[in-house]
Order: sequence, then C-alpha cells, then structure tokens
Amino acid sequence: MIVGVIGGGQLARMMIPAAVNLGIELRVLAVSAGESASLAVTQLGDHTDADAVLRFAEGVDVVTFDHEHVPQSVLTALVDAGVAVRPGPDALLYAQNKLLMREKLAALGLPVPDWARVETESELDAFLADHGGVGVLKTPTGGYDGKGVRVVRAAAEAAAWFGSGPLLVEELVSFQRELAQLVARRPSGEIAAWPVVESMQRDGVCAEVIAPAPRSAGKVAEVASAIAVRVAEELGVTGVLAVELFETTDERLLVNELAMRPHNTGHWSMDGAITGQFEQHLRAVLDLPLGATAPREPWSVMVNVLGGPSVGTMEDRYPALMADQPSVKVHSYGKTPRPGRKVGHVNASGTELDEVVFRARAAAAFFED
Amino acid sequence: MIVGVIGGGQLARMMIPAAVNLGIELRVLAVSAGESASLAVTQLGDHTDADAVLRFAEGVDVVTFDHEHVPQSVLTALVDAGVAVRPGPDALLYAQNKLLMREKLAALGLPVPDWARVETESELDAFLADHGGVGVLKTPTGGYDGKGVRVVRAAAEAAAWFGSGPLLVEELVSFQRELAQLVARRPSGEIAAWPVVESMQRDGVCAEVIAPAPRSAGKVAEVASAIAVRVAEELGVTGVLAVELFETTDERLLVNELAMRPHNTGHWSMDGAITGQFEQHLRAVLDLPLGATAPREPWSVMVNVLGGPSVGTMEDRYPALMADQPSVKVHSYGKTPRPGRKVGHVNASGTELDEVVFRARAAAAFFED
Repeated sequence: MIVGVIGGGQLARMMIPAAVNLGIELRVLAVSAGESASLAVTQLGDHTDADAVLRFAEGVDVVTFDHEHVPQSVLTALVDAGVAVRPGPDALLYAQNKLLMREKLAALGLPVPDWARVETESELDAFLADHGGVGVLKTPTGGYDGKGVRVVRAAAEAAAWFGSGPLLVEELVSFQRELAQLVARRPSGEIAAWPVVESMQRDGVCAEVIAPAPRSAGKVAEVASAIAVRVAEELGVTGVLAVELFETTDERLLVNELAMRPHNTGHWSMDGAITGQFEQHLRAVLDLPLGATAPREPWSVMVNVLGGPSVGTMEDRYPALMADQPSVKVHSYGKTPRPGRKVGHVNASGTELDEVVFRARAAAAFFED
Repeated sequence: MIVGVIGGGQLARMMIPAAVNLGIELRVLAVSAGESASLAVTQLGDHTDADAVLRFAEGVDVVTFDHEHVPQSVLTALVDAGVAVRPGPDALLYAQNKLLMREKLAALGLPVPDWARVETESELDAFLADHGGVGVLKTPTGGYDGKGVRVVRAAAEAAAWFGSGPLLVEELVSFQRELAQLVARRPSGEIAAWPVVESMQRDGVCAEVIAPAPRSAGKVAEVASAIAVRVAEELGVTGVLAVELFETTDERLLVNELAMRPHNTGHWSMDGAITGQFEQHLRAVLDLPLGATAPREPWSVMVNVLGGPSVGTMEDRYPALMADQPSVKVHSYGKTPRPGRKVGHVNASGTELDEVVFRARAAAAFFED
C-alpha cells in the first residue's frame, strides 16, 4: 500500500508514524528540502505543476493532501490519468473556495451564517447595512489561519480587496464559542465521527482544543455530528473532514469553515483517541475500514506551540518540560521557531478537565519565553 | 537531537514514530537495503566493522542499538572516539554473554536458576546428575528466540556443542509462567518501570503478552520491579532493560534472560501505556527525563504475528481485520512473511481481560491461514 501526499508540512509529517505502524509506504511531494515531512519526501516539486504531480503519482495507490493548494486543473489531470485522488477534485473545490462552499451548504439547507456574494463596494455596504453595520469579508480562496479574513464596518475599509473577482461577506456571528466536528469517510461510504471538540483561537489561529467539547453531551454533539456527516456525504468527501462550527449565543450551530484533511482541531486524537486522525485519514483514503474513534480518557486537551522559543529549539526545553510533566505528549514539527508559526503541540489526557488543562498549558509554557 | 541506531530491524523501525513525534532525528545503520527500518537508514554497513560504525557515529548525539550483536571491540572503539554509547559496552557485555550474565547476577545475590559453567561433557553430566537428570544447555553468545538453547538429559546429546569454549547449563526450572519486567534508566540515574507483564512463548518465541501480569499486584510486582531496578543500577544499563523472569511453582522469581533494548514483551506499551518503550528508550539514551509508565487502560494484550499469511502480505488482510476489530492497533514491520518470522504484532486494551484477549487474538488470527 503506497499513499502519496502532496505537500510536506506538519500534516504530512504526522502521517508518518501512522504509516510506519501500519506498514504503509508514504511518499511525499514537497516544494523544498527540509520541510516538516522531509523524512518521507520522495520528490521535490511544485504542486501546481501538473507534470511534476503526475510523475509523483506514478505507482502510488492513492494521492492525498497536506494542504488545499493544488489547483483544480492539476487535480483533474490526475483523475484523467486514472489516479485515485482522495478527497477528489469535486469535493476539494468546496474546501478551496469559500464562496462555492457557502453556496453549496446553503443549497443543502445546512445552517450557515447570513452571507452574500459581493462584487462591488456598494453591494458590500448594502449587506453591512442589513447586518448591523458590520460583517466579515473573506477572499474566496487562499485564506487560512486568519489570513484573507477581516471584519469590516464600511466597504471603503476594504477597497483594495475589490477588483480581483467576487468576495464573500458574512454576518459577524455572535457566538459563545467555536466547535469543530471531525469525521472520516471512505469511498465505499463508511463514516466515523470523533466527539465534537471546543477550539479556542488566538489572533485567528487555533490555540487550544478540548475534547470532547464541555457541555456538548446530547444535542450539541448530535447536531454537530449530523452536520458533518451530511457535509461529508453530500460533498462526497473522502479522508478526514473538519467542520468548524460556531455555537451561537442563541444556541444554534452554524458552519464556519471546512477542511478536507487532518486538522489542527484533531491533533488531540493522536494520543487521546483509540484511532488518531492521521491513522484514520490513511485508512479512509485507502478505503480500509475505519478505526474506533472513542476517546481513551474522559478529557483530552491540546495546546499549540505557536512561535516556539525565541532562543534555541523546542528540544532545548525538553529537560525542564519532561521533568515537570511526565505524562504530557510532546509533538515537534521539526521547524525553526518563528513568531506565530505552528511549530508543535502538546497533548494531555485525564479524568478531571481542569487538571488536564493545567498540565497541557504548563507543558506548552516551557516553549515560550 | 540525533540518535544513531545500529541495526535496521523492527526495533529500530518502531523508534521512528517516537522520534518523529519528538522531533528527534534518527539515523540507522543497516546491513542491507530494504530492512524493516529502511525509512530511517542513513548508511549501509557491517556493524562488526569498526571503521564503518565510527563513520556512522559521526555527528550523532548518542549511539544505541536494535540488537546486541555489535562486538565489544567496536563498542570500545566508539567509546574511545568520544561517542556516547548507550547502553555502554560494560553493560552490554552481560546482554551479549549469558555466562557472564549468570556469574554477575549470582555475584550480586540476585535470584537465578541453579547454573554452572561447563567445558566438558563430564562436567555437564555431573550437573545433570545433581539436577534430576535434566538441564538447559545454552551457548553463552549468539542465541535468541530459542536458538542456542536446548534441553538435555545427557551430555552425549550435545556433543557437537563442546569444543568452542565454555557453555552455560541451568536447571530446568519448574515454572508456573514467564514474566517480563521492563524498566528504563537514564545516565543521570533516573529509572522508570512499567508494570510487570506475563509472556507466553510458543516454540521458544514470545507469542502473547498480558500487561499487567494477572495476579501480580502486590508482592510479584514489587519483587519483579526491585530485581530489574537493581540489575539496571548494578550493571549500569542505560535505555530500556528487559528482565525475563520465571515465576516458579513455589512462587519465587528467577531471572531468566536480560535484553538491553526495547523488547518484544514491551510492545504492548506502544498503545497501552502513557509512554511506550520506544519513546522511553529515546528519552533514556538522550538523558531526557523519563515519561509516565502508567497503563492507559486496566488491561493490554499483545499478540505477535509469527510468520504471517502464507499468501500475500499482512496488508492484504486489513480489510477483513479492521472491519472486525476496529479498536485493535495493528503494527506491521514491513517484512516479507516467512514461517516463524516476527512480521508484526497487534495490541488491544480494555477493562475486561478476557474480552481484551479475545479481541487481540481475533485480530492476529486474520494474519494466519
């Protein structure tokens, strides 16, 4: 079994342990040497170059992804060449383009924030006027971790964003918290859901995740799972699907974003669930039966290492961290620390939430200055 | 942090996931291409060739091992060159030579079977006469998985074994069961013990492990742990130490064998303990604080895949196995199936021992014909 992964970042890297355990050969196409997944890199090349990608795909059983940046033209060239691409281009389209995603989810009747497609400043101002004078403007493509997203109160604030195609504007949702529902779906249709989790963002970037989301037992968990299952089925997603959700102040769940790959809000599962998201993604794209998604302990908490130490490496901090927190699991992405960069995460699990949060935060703090 | 591993077998392979998670660079010296740990192989060469091993060790922070077959002359050449070798030659000696091990443990007053060093058939016959006419004859070096070991009732049966140096003969211990106590020790002295486990052998090869050993709470666990801690300290072991024990019919614990590396009886810990033996071994040889060794669930069971399918690969059986046992963790060593060969293992965990044994055996059975 050979899985080809396009992209050499930390998501590809974290597929390596799962692949080694299962005896799956992993091949990675990376842009440059020394990326996070370098151990499994078999080809350097540009993921927008169809010839390079087709060459990479020769001999693999399935192609999957570390990121969403492979152009549709390249994806369809793969499909036309008979390569199994999972998730496929028709599904990935909705993870690549937020405007198409909104249109599709709305057409399916799934709960989303109020939104509009706007091509001119006056269209944007009209939407803002209808929504309390504020909205969230998004570029349909290219945004991630808070980039390509801004809160606007007048179209003039975002004048520079117009002129390169339609934009998406959404109501500024009044939410209690953000949730994420991850599921995996295999081509033959089986779907497995992890418990819905709560994610806390800092500066638009995921900072902490609690699994399961506190106070989610019952309706919240059921609705979140039902939404993600419907998205996976209706969009024909294969592999891991992450549905980011708002839990509004009036207790509705609205779909915020979609990602069709392992996701930061699923990193807790590497140590906290019987089947982690990287193993499950490999199983799903290979159309193998999915693994059990039950948590190993009542609570798991993940804290991202954002930026990392200002001096030295994460590994320099291991002696102090490991002496202090012998049960926390540390994940380093092999990256050079840089402000704001996701360079690793820590996972902790246990029976008392406050104690688990404390341990995870205490461990992550060793990587800060 | 760079760890060099001499030997490219499954033990080196299973260090890869732990190294990837912790951002540790692993370099493996293997005899030939395509060995189990091939993903991390950085040099092909003979581990008995001091020049090759010295070249391999350049730039690594520490050298450790997949097996015990590196000659003392090569080990001391590494030490003389200033390389950190863990475990060191003075400790490894006792894992390499069963006669020296018996002499050392006896000198320390640790509980061992009756034994003797025999150089002639008449010495062996004298030992047998004193021990009910039966004994276990062992070559001091080179034996593993039942090789270099035989039960003898008369020296004449083993005539061919004499003439190449002293042999070890031991009483045929009347034991209820075999146990294994694994600990890890770092150079600065910290030791962490996993729970003692029960191991079941088939044809001299480990077939199943139950962790913790049933009916071991209290005295058995304490004595086993105390023996292993004493061995680790007195012999100056660094890294993982496995002490194989007999629990005799009269309820004593006797040391059978030692291994100074991750061990088959510790594979359960990869999924069943907070810190698995491969992560712990890396932490120990790097002199990092040791991880928590508590089990994640009350019971874990490991079943070896011995031989594997007579037709096709382990991976061919995944669809049926995974559909039947979604919570069992499968480990494939990337080896070609061959009768008797250790090609993988499965781990299961849970709260009811019988149910866990059933699941693990049911999963492993998918790899048999």
